[in-house]
Amino acid sequence: MKDTGIGSEKIIRRKRDGELEYQTDDLTIEEPLEIRIGRKTLATTMRTPGHDEELAAGFLVSEAIVRDRKEITAILETGDNIVTVELATGVKLKLDSAQRFGTISSSCGICGKNSIAAIRQNFPPISSSPDVRIATETLTSLPDLLRERQGDFVRTGGIHAAGIFDLTGKPKIVREDIGRHNAVDKAIGRAFLDGLVPLDRHILLVSGRASFEIVQKGLSAGIPIVASVSAPSTLAMNFAREGNQTLIGFLRPPSFNLYSHVERVILEKY
Amino acid sequence: MKDTGIGSEKIIRRKRDGELEYQTDDLTIEEPLEIRIGRKTLATTMRTPGHDEELAAGFLVSEAIVRDRKEITAILETGDNIVTVELATGVKLKLDSAQRFGTISSSCGICGKNSIAAIRQNFPPISSSPDVRIATETLTSLPDLLRERQGDFVRTGGIHAAGIFDLTGKPKIVREDIGRHNAVDKAIGRAFLDGLVPLDRHILLVSGRASFEIVQKGLSAGIPIVASVSAPSTLAMNFAREGNQTLIGFLRPPSFNLYSHVERVILEKY
Repeated sequence: MKDTGIGSEKIIRRKRDGELEYQTDDLTIEEPLEIRIGRKTLATTMRTPGHDEELAAGFLVSEAIVRDRKEITAILETGDNIVTVELATGVKLKLDSAQRFGTISSSCGICGKNSIAAIRQNFPPISSSPDVRIATETLTSLPDLLRERQGDFVRTGGIHAAGIFDLTGKPKIVREDIGRHNAVDKAIGRAFLDGLVPLDRHILLVSGRASFEIVQKGLSAGIPIVASVSAPSTLAMNFAREGNQTLIGFLRPPSFNLYSHVERVILEKY
Repeated sequence: MKDTGIGSEKIIRRKRDGELEYQTDDLTIEEPLEIRIGRKTLATTMRTPGHDEELAAGFLVSEAIVRDRKEITAILETGDNIVTVELATGVKLKLDSAQRFGTISSSCGICGKNSIAAIRQNFPPISSSPDVRIATETLTSLPDLLRERQGDFVRTGGIHAAGIFDLTGKPKIVREDIGRHNAVDKAIGRAFLDGLVPLDRHILLVSGRASFEIVQKGLSAGIPIVASVSAPSTLAMNFAREGNQTLIGFLRPPSFNLYSHVERVILEKY
């Protein structure tokens, strides 16, 4: 597998003073990845190479194909930009039946799904637990922690990041990808492969906006708090409210917005 | 069809001084849209409601299902968040055969495609025409023109825009959507429905990054110059180079980067 997400290219830059300069620019690598289950193609996604097995695992978690670590027996690189997942026998049968009924998307996230209601059925709401709370100071420390671990963004300016933190703000997993949903899949996939799912005492932070898909992926991994540095959508907010998830947007310290289940953020000092 | 892309919601905002405020926030609406051809579901995409018929038309153009305005006989709203496209008889047959061979994606953009090569085959490179050029001053005027027409972004901070401009910098079509690819589909779809495709004397500007998908959608509409205010990917650049498209990134006046076919930008003053 490729071990870098960056390609260097000769380009022309027009500088602020109007002068032209031939320079070398670092670009985010984007290539298709085909995710197979056995011999069948489950999805093809445009992604930044690297951590492909995590991307595949995270995708399977968020599509409700696997819930338990044991359900994946192997993830192999079976070709250029192809990963093949081997499932335990019972899971394979479940998958075949779901495909027959057309409930599994053939590609990214929501695509191919008939309705949001079908997705809601796949994932129960987060259980309420009074001790799952995060302090304001911890929350506002996360964007810097994410950025410090985002090596590729600094160089290319064109890559998204997703970070999984514990409730004390300790970074557990940070992944980058040209697609925000892929960065989330890679982070969740790593956690899943390490047996850490459900991440019921963790927070997911994404570098961009919070669309429905990001909140849904968080729910699929049991994550109670989802934060983004930019705007959420209406559907992201409504989905978070129904799934008992705390949704934080515009996390730009010292400010942020709370869109749902504010009880998990310790707002006052004691 | 819905005529606004914004929903107002009560949220809690932590202000810079640490004070909390209950306020009304404008959020970008995100809802699924099912695009049908006859009775078959071609794709489901998460989008901001509005201009759904344009989104469907632009999607069909970029998927190489239609090339000529006459190939679409009707686009109807046939349900809540469902649009149905009626194709001329010959096109319907072509589509059936393509689906049989699995060359048409069942969902967004690249997803489901077996290879980039297959996409290249669908769209010939842009023809070279020495008079298709844009002046530096025109190019650097575009981001402001786009932003001025982006009503929803100002309110929500969470929506992408795509604009089609002529070579003198005159804005022809500007569309907004929570998905950058949808904004491009809507703009191209409008142009297609108005009989303006191929847009061989036009420039496409997108508010975010330039991924492969954006450049490919530009090529599908015959657009020779694609610009983005942020970073392109390696694949976007390589695809533009092969398709004889000019790719401009980080268009942040007075600076910008040129990634391919620089001959279409008039860099020196005469």
